[in-house]
Amino acid sequence: MSNQQYSSSLLENAVNEFAKLPGIGRKTALRLVLYLLKQPEQEVEAFGNAFIQLRKEIIYCKVCHNISDTEVCRICSNPSRDHETVCVVENIKDVMSVENTQQFRGLYHVLGGIISPMDGIGPKDLEIESLIQRVTEEQVKEVILALSTTMEGDTTNFYIFRKLAPLNIKVTTIARGVAIGDELEYADEVTLGRSILNRVDFTNSFK
Amino acid sequence: MSNQQYSSSLLENAVNEFAKLPGIGRKTALRLVLYLLKQPEQEVEAFGNAFIQLRKEIIYCKVCHNISDTEVCRICSNPSRDHETVCVVENIKDVMSVENTQQFRGLYHVLGGIISPMDGIGPKDLEIESLIQRVTEEQVKEVILALSTTMEGDTTNFYIFRKLAPLNIKVTTIARGVAIGDELEYADEVTLGRSILNRVDFTNSFK
Repeated sequence: MSNQQYSSSLLENAVNEFAKLPGIGRKTALRLVLYLLKQPEQEVEAFGNAFIQLRKEIIYCKVCHNISDTEVCRICSNPSRDHETVCVVENIKDVMSVENTQQFRGLYHVLGGIISPMDGIGPKDLEIESLIQRVTEEQVKEVILALSTTMEGDTTNFYIFRKLAPLNIKVTTIARGVAIGDELEYADEVTLGRSILNRVDFTNSFK
Repeated sequence: MSNQQYSSSLLENAVNEFAKLPGIGRKTALRLVLYLLKQPEQEVEAFGNAFIQLRKEIIYCKVCHNISDTEVCRICSNPSRDHETVCVVENIKDVMSVENTQQFRGLYHVLGGIISPMDGIGPKDLEIESLIQRVTEEQVKEVILALSTTMEGDTTNFYIFRKLAPLNIKVTTIARGVAIGDELEYADEVTLGRSILNRVDFTNSFK
């Protein structure tokens, strides 16, 4: 496919741009580009600008570190949500996974990763200090640890649990309905939803 | 997934735009958007603008009706290609399929479809008159019919062959190495390339 000659450099360019995306091959890229070519000009403009605008204007919520349009994100600034419960997750995809279960009405705290000595990621590289500070300063009554059920997730759970212990608040983990060794984002919604409902006290989760 | 709440409307919008594409689900859309979010701003701008520019500026070659940046496309205006041989194809994807085989150095003629009474597509809806005119006016010595090996493709082959017969030029079809009933765009490059090399005289192709 390397010496492929397109009749149009505009087409070639558009296919190349699509094919840069992970998991999108040149055939799929071409199919998608030809689909876009058939759409009204206005819609193609909306398509292209959606990503440009996202990249330019996105910011991170100063409370939970989730991506946001505003200084404080939609979830954190929603008064109908339970501000006393904070669910700690690894990344923004996990926020969406938990949101999809529709079982959780509290707030989030996005760590930006998990402790992983193999990858050189320590507690200082994550939003753990800001979590402790947040719990100290705000009316948080329960912290739910919703990290992946891997070695790294367990390590991070322990680390955060020890940091939170002096604050005397309830610390729970999601029920181990999520199969051991699985990444959170691949869990199905029912399992993940149930694991939020059946969360157990952190100190009991190893009995 | 219907009541999914994103923390950012920019993100939601970008995911929605991606999910409009055929074969792209919401999970894939989210994965691609999060990938784009990690790229430099300049690259995301190039990505978005590639489609907008393509849609705005694309035109159709006045000779072969393939999509083009200019009035006459790259292939038709390339002096090193064989201007005496014209390969007739259904659509622009088929041009690319044949180009990929690197077995053909002539020019193309894109019909814009095939004769299909079931879909209400007759000869007048296709670029057949312009093909006859082109062959009459220019120094074309051979027309290769490279349509899908379906009923509709055969019908279109016959129709064009009858129209070309009075002009006394060579009319060939691609060898039936492409399995009967298959769409041209799904044929592998080796089979398709060989079917171009082993093309047979149209009048002999039914013996």
